[in-house]
Parts: sequence; C-alpha cells; structure tokens
Amino acid sequence: MDRATALKDLRACLKTIGVDAMIIPSNDCHFGEYVQNYFCVRAWLSGFDGSAGTLVVTADKALLWTDSRYFIQAADQLKGSEIELMKMRMEGTPTVEEWLNTHFRGDSSFRVAIDGSIFSIEEYNTLSSKLSGSVVVIDDPFNKIWKEREPIHFGHIDLLDERYSGESVISKRQRIAEALQMEDENTVYILSKCDDIMYLCNLRGCDVDYNPVALSYAVVRKDFIIIFGNETSFSAQAHEYLAYQSIAILPYNTFFGYLEQLSPDVRKIVKYDSTSVKVRESAGNINLVEDPTPGGTVSYLKSIKNDTETDGFKEAFLMDGIAWCKLLKYIDDNIETGTLNEYNVARQLIEYRKQCIDYRGESFEPIVAMNANAASAHYSVSNAQDAAKIIPEGFLLMDTGAHYLFGTTDTTRTVSLSPLSQVQMDDYTLVLKGMIQLSMAVFPKGTRGSQLDILARGPIMNKGKMYFHGTGHGIGHYLCVHEGPQSIRMEYNPVTLEPGMIQSNEPAVYVEGKYGIRTENVILVTSYRKNDVNTFYNFETLTLVPIDTKCINKDLLGESCIEWLNDYHRQVFDSLSPYLSDEENVWLSQKTAAI
Amino acid sequence: MDRATALKDLRACLKTIGVDAMIIPSNDCHFGEYVQNYFCVRAWLSGFDGSAGTLVVTADKALLWTDSRYFIQAADQLKGSEIELMKMRMEGTPTVEEWLNTHFRGDSSFRVAIDGSIFSIEEYNTLSSKLSGSVVVIDDPFNKIWKEREPIHFGHIDLLDERYSGESVISKRQRIAEALQMEDENTVYILSKCDDIMYLCNLRGCDVDYNPVALSYAVVRKDFIIIFGNETSFSAQAHEYLAYQSIAILPYNTFFGYLEQLSPDVRKIVKYDSTSVKVRESAGNINLVEDPTPGGTVSYLKSIKNDTETDGFKEAFLMDGIAWCKLLKYIDDNIETGTLNEYNVARQLIEYRKQCIDYRGESFEPIVAMNANAASAHYSVSNAQDAAKIIPEGFLLMDTGAHYLFGTTDTTRTVSLSPLSQVQMDDYTLVLKGMIQLSMAVFPKGTRGSQLDILARGPIMNKGKMYFHGTGHGIGHYLCVHEGPQSIRMEYNPVTLEPGMIQSNEPAVYVEGKYGIRTENVILVTSYRKNDVNTFYNFETLTLVPIDTKCINKDLLGESCIEWLNDYHRQVFDSLSPYLSDEENVWLSQKTAAI
Repeated sequence: MDRATALKDLRACLKTIGVDAMIIPSNDCHFGEYVQNYFCVRAWLSGFDGSAGTLVVTADKALLWTDSRYFIQAADQLKGSEIELMKMRMEGTPTVEEWLNTHFRGDSSFRVAIDGSIFSIEEYNTLSSKLSGSVVVIDDPFNKIWKEREPIHFGHIDLLDERYSGESVISKRQRIAEALQMEDENTVYILSKCDDIMYLCNLRGCDVDYNPVALSYAVVRKDFIIIFGNETSFSAQAHEYLAYQSIAILPYNTFFGYLEQLSPDVRKIVKYDSTSVKVRESAGNINLVEDPTPGGTVSYLKSIKNDTETDGFKEAFLMDGIAWCKLLKYIDDNIETGTLNEYNVARQLIEYRKQCIDYRGESFEPIVAMNANAASAHYSVSNAQDAAKIIPEGFLLMDTGAHYLFGTTDTTRTVSLSPLSQVQMDDYTLVLKGMIQLSMAVFPKGTRGSQLDILARGPIMNKGKMYFHGTGHGIGHYLCVHEGPQSIRMEYNPVTLEPGMIQSNEPAVYVEGKYGIRTENVILVTSYRKNDVNTFYNFETLTLVPIDTKCINKDLLGESCIEWLNDYHRQVFDSLSPYLSDEENVWLSQKTAAI
Repeated sequence: MDRATALKDLRACLKTIGVDAMIIPSNDCHFGEYVQNYFCVRAWLSGFDGSAGTLVVTADKALLWTDSRYFIQAADQLKGSEIELMKMRMEGTPTVEEWLNTHFRGDSSFRVAIDGSIFSIEEYNTLSSKLSGSVVVIDDPFNKIWKEREPIHFGHIDLLDERYSGESVISKRQRIAEALQMEDENTVYILSKCDDIMYLCNLRGCDVDYNPVALSYAVVRKDFIIIFGNETSFSAQAHEYLAYQSIAILPYNTFFGYLEQLSPDVRKIVKYDSTSVKVRESAGNINLVEDPTPGGTVSYLKSIKNDTETDGFKEAFLMDGIAWCKLLKYIDDNIETGTLNEYNVARQLIEYRKQCIDYRGESFEPIVAMNANAASAHYSVSNAQDAAKIIPEGFLLMDTGAHYLFGTTDTTRTVSLSPLSQVQMDDYTLVLKGMIQLSMAVFPKGTRGSQLDILARGPIMNKGKMYFHGTGHGIGHYLCVHEGPQSIRMEYNPVTLEPGMIQSNEPAVYVEGKYGIRTENVILVTSYRKNDVNTFYNFETLTLVPIDTKCINKDLLGESCIEWLNDYHRQVFDSLSPYLSDEENVWLSQKTAAI
C-alpha cells in the first residue's frame, strides 16, 4: 500500500469519527525504547523509520516532526510524499500544538484525535493545556486501514535466576510496599514499562529488539503481584518461581478490564511519565495518585544495582573487553587488506562476543563508522552494501554493546587509522580529557548528574566546541541499555547519584562532513570516603578496553589525566591478559603501554 | 531586661492570644540581609546575634535553629539561658515544623503564631503545609514586652546619578512593563525589597548597615511608580528627579492602607519570596499572581549590569586594588613589630580606601582572621580588645569589601606569615586551583550556576574536603554585597548565568581549631564566542589584588592554572602600578612575579 492511499484512508476515517486532525507518535503502549512492527504506524504512514518522530495529519496537510539527529534521513525518506518535514527545536519551527493552533486559527472548536493507549497522561495534559481546540481520545484506528499490519507477537519468557538478579521478587515487593507506604490492599501500583516489570519479577523476554523484555503490564499490591502477559510464553521454571513469589499471571488483554473492575476503595499509584491515558480512563473515577517520590518507584529501585548485579556487570565488561581486544587486533591485522568494512567489522565483534556462552545478543544496533559517517551521532549500517570500506585514513568510531546473562555493556572507542592533523589530535585529546575528568570526580551525597556534566564537557567547550547529547545515561542489568531515572547531562534532573548506579560517560566531538570522536566508558557510583560531616562518592570504571594512545596530545591532556590513563591501561592489561593468547598479549601490552 | 524575663513576658502574651508557640525569624519586613535594631527580636530574646537563626518559644521550651557557620558562636551565646541549640541540616536535627509536630504529638489543634509582616508568603505556605497544627497570623507583639526597643529610623536618601546607574527610571519601568505585559493600569507590581526599589528608582539610602538602602515599599504600574518612604528623607535633587521620572512619594506607613483601597479591578503581581503575608492580607480578596518568569522581576533586571555599571565595578576594583596593595605591603612592613592585630589591620584598610573620595563605606563587616579564627567562615571582630595579634605564624585570612559610588567590591586573600607545612600548602593550592578553574570556565547560554560549582569545589572534594557554603553570590552595584537571583552553588537554582551578571568566586578550606583558607575574586559573565549553533560565555575577572604565591604547590596547581595565575598577576601589576609609588611598585613587582 502506498503512502498516499494510506493517508487518504486515514483521512476518511478521521472524517467519520468527526475529528480535524490526528497526532501519531512513535511509541507503543509500554513507552519503551524499542517497539514491535505492529506499533510502527508513524513509520508505515510516513516512510520515515528513524526512532523518534511525530506525524500530524489533517484534512489537507501532513507533517512530520523529528530532531536534528534525523534531519537528513527524514528529508530523504519523505521525498515523493506530501509530508512536510518539521525540524524540531530549530528557530522558527513551531511545536505540534503551536502549528495546530495556527492552522485552525480563529476556530477553537477544532478536534484533535489521539490513540489513548500510546499517549502518556503527562503528554495528554501538556497537549490539552496548550491546544486551543479539544483533544479526542480514540482507539487505534489502523487495524482497518493497515492491511499488512503484523500482529503483536509474544516470545518466550525466562526466569532470571536470583544468582544473577541478586534479590527475590518478594523482597523487591516489600521494599516498594514500604517506600509507598502500602498499608493495605487499597493501594495499587500500576506498571506499564516492560523493563520495570522484568526487573521486578526477575524475568527476561524477547518481544522487541535489543531489550530483553516481554510485552506486559503489572500491578503491585501489598502482598502480591499480577503480571498481565501471554500465559503460554512463560517457561515452566518461570511459572513455578512466580507462584512461589506470590505472582499471578493474567492474560495480556485482560489488563484494562481488570482496571475497570477495581473496587472504588482502591487508591492507585502510578508514575505519569509511563502511564497511558487509557489506563486512567479504564480506572474510571478512582482516585489516581502520582507518586511524588522517585524512591518508591520500580525504575528507581532498578537503577540502584545490588552487589550481585554489579558483580555481573564487572563480569560482562570482562567478557566484552576480551571480545573488543580481539576485534581491535583483528582490525590492526587486516586494515591493509582492503577487506574490512563497517558492516563486517560489527559482525566480527559479535562473533568474538559469541565465544562467551552467556552472550545474549547486542544491546543496541552497532555503530561502526568511518570518518564523516561518525559525525552523525547515531549512524549505523544494517547491511554490507551500504557499508563504507575501512581504509588506513582518519578515524574509525565504534560504539557497540552486548547483553550477557549477568549484565549489559555499552562501549565506544575511536581509533586512528593513519597519522592525524594537529586539530584531530587535539579534538581526540579533549574528548578523552573530559571522559577522564568525569571518571575522577569525587562528589558529596546529594549531587545531581547535571552538576558533574561540565567535567566531561568542559575541555571541549573551552575550545568553543560542543556535543548535542547528554554525557551519561543509566544502563539496565541485562535490560535496556538506556535507562533512567538518573542521567549526567546539562538539563536539570532532580535524581541524585547514589552508590550502585551505573551509567555511561561519553563526551564527543563531531565535525560535520569530516569525522566524529567519542570515547565511552561505563562508570559505577561507589562510596569513596566519609568523615563526620560528609559522605563522598566517586566512580569506579567498569569498561576494560584499551584507549588509542596514538592520538593523544600529552600537553593538552595534562599530568593527572595521563596518570589516570596509565593506571587504567595497567588495569585493562592485568584484567584481560589471563584470557588472551600470547600473541594477543604482545599486542595488548603495546596498546596499554604507559605514555 | 534579662532573657528569662523576656521569655516569661512573651509566654504570658502568647497565653493571652491563645496560641501554643511562636516562631521568630531573623528578618525585617523587607527581607533584606541587614536589619535595624528595631527588628532584632530574635537576637534580643535569645542573646544570639549571628545573622541567621530562628527562635521557637512554647510554654515550656525555647529553641534556636542556626546553621553550621554559627554553631560555636550560638552555643557560646546561649550559655546561661534555657534555650536549646538546634544545629540545622545536621543528621538527626528536626526542622522547626518537624519539631513542633513531634512536640505537640497527638494534638493537631495546636496553634503557632507568626508575625505576618516578617513572614514571606512562601515561608507561610511551607509552614502551613508541613505543620499538623494551625498557623495564626498576629501583629508584632514585642512593642509592649521590649521596653528598650529602638524605634525604626530613616536617614537621608540621595539620587544615584544616571552617569553611575546608566539607565533612567522610565526606561527600567518600561522594560518591566513589557516583560510583565502590563497592558493597562490594572496590573500592579508590588516591591518590598529595599535594594530592588533603590535600583529601580536610582536612589541610595543609609537606613541599615553595609547596604545603602532606605526602608521603603513601592508599587510599579504601567505609567508611574509610587515609593512609600519617609518623605523628608529625600534630597531636593532626588525629589526633582523622581517627579521628572513619574515617581510619586507616599509616607512609609501608608503602604498597607494603599493596598487595602486598591480597586478590585486590579490584578497584582508579586514575587512571593520577598512579599509578606501582611501584604497579601492587606490586598484582601484581590487576585494575587506570582510572576512566573524571573525575567520580569526587578531583582532579575538588577542582576544584569549595564555597561555603565560594569565600568563602575571595574573602577571600584581598581580603587580597591590600590588600597589592598597598600595594606598587604603595610602588613609585610610591620609584621615583625608586634603591633598588628585583626582589628587595626581592618581599620587600616579602611584608611587606605578613604583615599578615594568616592568611597562610601564597607560593604560588609570586615573579616580579618588569624589561623584558627579563620576556621569560622564568618568570624569578625568589632573591637581592638577581642582582636588576635598578627604574628609571623601560619595564615592570615582577610575578607573585606567596599562601596564606592560606582560599584561594590568583595575580596578575600589568605596570606602566609611563616613557612607552612606540606598539608597547609596543599590546602592553599587546592583552593586556588578551584578558584582558577571556575575563572577559566567556558559554558553555553542556558547554563545554571549549579552546573559550574564543581569546577571550584572539585579539587577540594577530590581530597575528601569540603566547604559548607556556596561558591558564588551575585553582587549589587553600590547595593547589597550579596544579591540574587543567580548563584554558583551545589543547590539547584533555575536562574541561568547571563552576560552582565557579576558574582563572587570563593572556594575555601576550613580546618577547625587550626586555620581557614579562602581566595575570592569577583567575576563578570561575558560573551565568549558564537558559532552557528552555540553561544558560549566565559568570565572576566574584576578583582585586582595579588594572590600569595609563597604558599603554592606548583605540581598540584598544574600548568594551565599556573599560566592563568601568571597572566592574572601581570594584569594586576599593569593595572595598579600607575597609581602606586616607586617603593610600592618594587613590592608589587615581587608579589606579582611569575612562578
């Protein structure tokens, strides 16, 4: 079916319902980062398949909003359609609400439809307050229009043994009940985010790419939990464990019905940012309370890794370090052959990772990017034909991560393939200096990530340069590689960094049309020291992959960072060498030699 | 009258009113930093005369909350009274509300009195929401109890010529009217903070110590301003200017009556943080709107200095630099005589400052503190008897500032008077390194002070040390030396740093019982560079006083900070030497020699 016909059918449908426009976002009902094809309505209707975008369709217009990462790709993919590209956050670009208000000027009675199951309560509230017209909540209308729509599919669900998760479900539930002061059965905590549910119930699924979750909802009550999922997907072991942990399983499609029949005595607790309008509507006139404390939410508990989980992460970074070393040596050994390209190098790393039997797949689409390709922060190639050749010239940036049964990794290294210019060396050094400065931070209890961002970003900004993404994101434990609620970015985020939180540290420099440099380690918040008045934390680096020292301007890096780097490389060598061959160790000892 | 009798009389009074407790804060009706004796009820009742503290009196208890700056002083001054010291923000110390709730356990009907004229609306709202009992707003009850109470006094009010202020009142009023969208006379902006009123009306007074303000209220309307002040205090020149700028003067004590008779059509705009409950009560049932944008407030306009004001600041720091150099040389010349003490050194600096005819007094109580005395961040001596002798041993910390007609200064220098231990040198160097790192910052438009604090605090925290105050505060233009709304501290403050904002940069290390080290420059936000996507700002240092280089551990300071320091000293020498004698210049060239 072509886009023109699809848009025509949608417009006919909107006319029947009696609405003037529809807003079509990118997410699914669970507000996760990765979604099944069933939910890719925006991509299907517009042809633009980037991860972020919002389509607006009126009787005579169709527009797609997306952010700077995707301007080039979207312009390309929208070609040949009537759909206009709206460049988000650029001067002169109205927001969706502003555009709608202007388009329907003089008519406050216009009606804008949204699918209530994929709009969060927060998004709905913002939209309602900013729109001069009204918002009409409808059911998903696309089953009728989208003939080739794939159904939702449910894969197997496995138990994640407590020897990997480190805590029973009962214990997690009790901690939540205490934090949320669940005194009786009249408090119900509703969960829509699949990774929260997987964490809470010690389960892992395979329903979306890159994130080992099962599509599910859950409600937590004082003495039990109900998971709404596909009953036949659970392994026998999972069934047994869940029963033992006071967890009932109900069919996925009974979730909204369950909410509708809840006793009116019930007071429900939800986090608005990941709860849909449909949840609120199903709960009817029962009092919905937004949990005011991040402390009581599953996503907060999940962010603070226990000792078993952090040990698992360390094991994961050890396994991944071995694979990375083999890959870096493989590139060194084969760079002159002319056979390497971005695609087969990414595949090769996967082969090395597979040598660990607990490898469970990539944690995101691998980025392997030569020179100018690396200047788009989210460049990736999914096939050999589009891949650039890797030749001895300039920089190669690799940003990839893996899931292991015991933890998830996310590592970026940029290596030089030829002698560099002074500017290239300096850019590389500034990025490394930022990464190291953040790694060395010592900070008191109560510090927010935004207070530390400048340590990573400062050296780069001091040269009038900038990178347009955060410095650090939380990382799931064999779950989504991007996870909250903490972050290290310029934007204010009230969540403070606490021991057990694991996040990335990835400053960068991008020079459009030329090259991109990013160096990323993963760092764990740990207790540093305590005196009578202060508790200080610092970071422990988990990543074990050599950093290219050929590109460093030592004067610019400075003594204390050089010292850190030499220590780091000593640790990389000591940790990895027992697992490598003699030949590999000769190579590694050169790569990790002190500078 | 002794404290016991005063407390007894207050308790009798509370019993008559029918309340169970009273909360007595430190401020006056204008929420300024310095208050007249009339308002020093807390100090009179408790005997504790530090700048910050809250007294709570119930039928059987009296407690004083104060912060870490004052723990030692308060403990000392409370001796011999029944008043218990409550150490704010220390583990285990309840807040005032928590303590009251616990004290009156099981009785939600308890009543707590506050004087509505000295409680801000915000403080009142917080108190009401956290207290399980109720808040009773009463009039100041102390006129009857406090027999020796000094009346409020009003000194002369002078015009600050536009050649110093750089902008007419009409222009400022128009900028406010535009920012607040004052379309007609039905919007009234109420001002209670005296320094906001002085800034707005190009006036300066002398009603409190250290801050050249006149006690006053004001209302701003679209086409005129009314000041409520003491009519006979205004100079003839001020009267003439005010009339010309559409400013009416009404008697100070008619302010609340004016609010009461405002037309009900009026929509008032206030900033809650400096507006009293009594203002809200006087305005009756007229709709009070809290201005949501800091951009429209006088305190925000005031914080962004215009070119005339920044030029004035530069002149002030030049004048002050000359005086400081003379003082530092005077100490060097006389340290061995045994005649120097903390008090006469502070007086000597004032003598040197007076050599500038535009000197208008100190901007705060001078701090000159030997060794252990400097470990209390706000130590000062007000008489020669209590002053410690300055002898060739350890550190001398001096933190003083001056008002000149064209600007205000605030400078701290710590100098070594004898050879130091390695730890002392290192502490000194860490403080200096923090000060320099913040001075060198480059940051994008939109950056908040809390994002930069770590640059100053980082080197100190990396050694597990800490200072318990902010790194930087805004500075008034021949107004209060501590001014908002911007700040550079760990705490979140949404106000972003903008070109024209002037603030201090004062990291420190305190070692109780031994010494205190603080180095403070004043820095101006300036435009640094702009490319197609980013606007970067940096800081220009205004202070021109040599920094003691004898105490520096060069390895610890690091190359880039050494380079900054040498540049700075070159600038200090070049700026000051034309105003100094040959002998002074010989001294200065040694003090500013490159290291």
